Amino acid sequence: MTDAITFPDVRIVLVETTHPGNIGAAARAMKNMGLSRLVLVAPRDFPNEKAVWRSASASDVVESAVVADSVADAIADCQLVIGTSARDRRIPWPMLEPRECGEKVFSEATAGNAVAILFGREARGLKNEELQQCHYHVNIPTAEAYSSLNLAMAVQVIAYEILQAARGDAPLEAPWDMEFASAESVEHLIDHLEQTLIEVGFHDPDNPRQLMTRLRRLLTRVRLDAMEVNILRGFLSAIEKKIR
Amino acid sequence: MTDAITFPDVRIVLVETTHPGNIGAAARAMKNMGLSRLVLVAPRDFPNEKAVWRSASASDVVESAVVADSVADAIADCQLVIGTSARDRRIPWPMLEPRECGEKVFSEATAGNAVAILFGREARGLKNEELQQCHYHVNIPTAEAYSSLNLAMAVQVIAYEILQAARGDAPLEAPWDMEFASAESVEHLIDHLEQTLIEVGFHDPDNPRQLMTRLRRLLTRVRLDAMEVNILRGFLSAIEKKIR
Repeated sequence: MTDAITFPDVRIVLVETTHPGNIGAAARAMKNMGLSRLVLVAPRDFPNEKAVWRSASASDVVESAVVADSVADAIADCQLVIGTSARDRRIPWPMLEPRECGEKVFSEATAGNAVAILFGREARGLKNEELQQCHYHVNIPTAEAYSSLNLAMAVQVIAYEILQAARGDAPLEAPWDMEFASAESVEHLIDHLEQTLIEVGFHDPDNPRQLMTRLRRLLTRVRLDAMEVNILRGFLSAIEKKIR
Repeated sequence: MTDAITFPDVRIVLVETTHPGNIGAAARAMKNMGLSRLVLVAPRDFPNEKAVWRSASASDVVESAVVADSVADAIADCQLVIGTSARDRRIPWPMLEPRECGEKVFSEATAGNAVAILFGREARGLKNEELQQCHYHVNIPTAEAYSSLNLAMAVQVIAYEILQAARGDAPLEAPWDMEFASAESVEHLIDHLEQTLIEVGFHDPDNPRQLMTRLRRLLTRVRLDAMEVNILRGFLSAIEKKIR
């Protein structure tokens, strides 16, 4: 047992989970590894006694789970968002190994940032639009013959690596001079940017191609701080003022 | 996915498992991580369709499981035997961390040794007489509040570390889809941005404060790719065209 390691704000976000047993098993895996904040986005069957039963002695985690309507709601105030993903995506995103993920989550949580780790549906994982709200993707390596992990097993591996990092010599993140922007403020920035792109005639929503996906990838992977968001919003407002 | 890593003789030995669902979940975890040899010592309820159902696409592992009467029978021909254990035992035994365990198992299996890893009963683990047949004990660190992992979760963590050891330094980083931008092209972008900021009245070169330094920090740390530079240059040109 590892004494008294606390994770001030690391939340595990399960998106549209079908089987309540998986919610319970994930809660147990979390508590075993010292995590307690569970967020359920539109679960298919919750509350359900199977979730409590499978959680064994982690029923407190199940019972205090927060239900959210959307991924955006679940992560609105988070400053680091990581999505679990199979490796191959058309537009590559910054990737972490589970071990790197554990170190990053621990060091950022210790620095006071709110962290969310997203886990997708049992059969289909996270949608592209959900993955594109993440700063990083994490992929759990598997054998070639069978690559689909059970949902709670994936939570177990990721939570295990967070506790490993907490126990070990995980390097602490160099301090930044500003606090990182929340997921919600970045979403507002991206909305504002899209509006401005349309107004200056650079973006045609009827023929979007990959433009917004590429800009979204840029603006998530850079991990904007709060002042940068303010600067960019100010620039967009100045453009609008000038052209109206 | 990790290509074609094979573990010549690494067997997972589950001792007197009560719930057949745990056997199936353990089999899935094994196959996900490239292990296939499952040995069941005196299982309480096996064969059972729940084991097959919970194994998902690892029913081959369940169906080829070998049933043994005792731990001694299960490990008779093994040259390295590791038992999972809670940490505190009256007589200390050589201990491995899960990560060390993964490395040891992989290196010995690669050298041709037959390896067994023992997992005990759901409620009570391995008996002392069983643990004393092991060369090493391995303990999965947990949080203080709840130290009892589900059996299949423990198999998942140990099997994950074996595959991690086998993968070694295999890079996970997905190739980026575009070449990274040259330093010169980023300098031109920053010049263009500054010009536009002045034209829309957001930046006063006579009173620059930290604006350009902050934007430069943003645009260098994100490691822009060539297409992103083109997109941003195109956006700036569209703004200029609109306001002139």
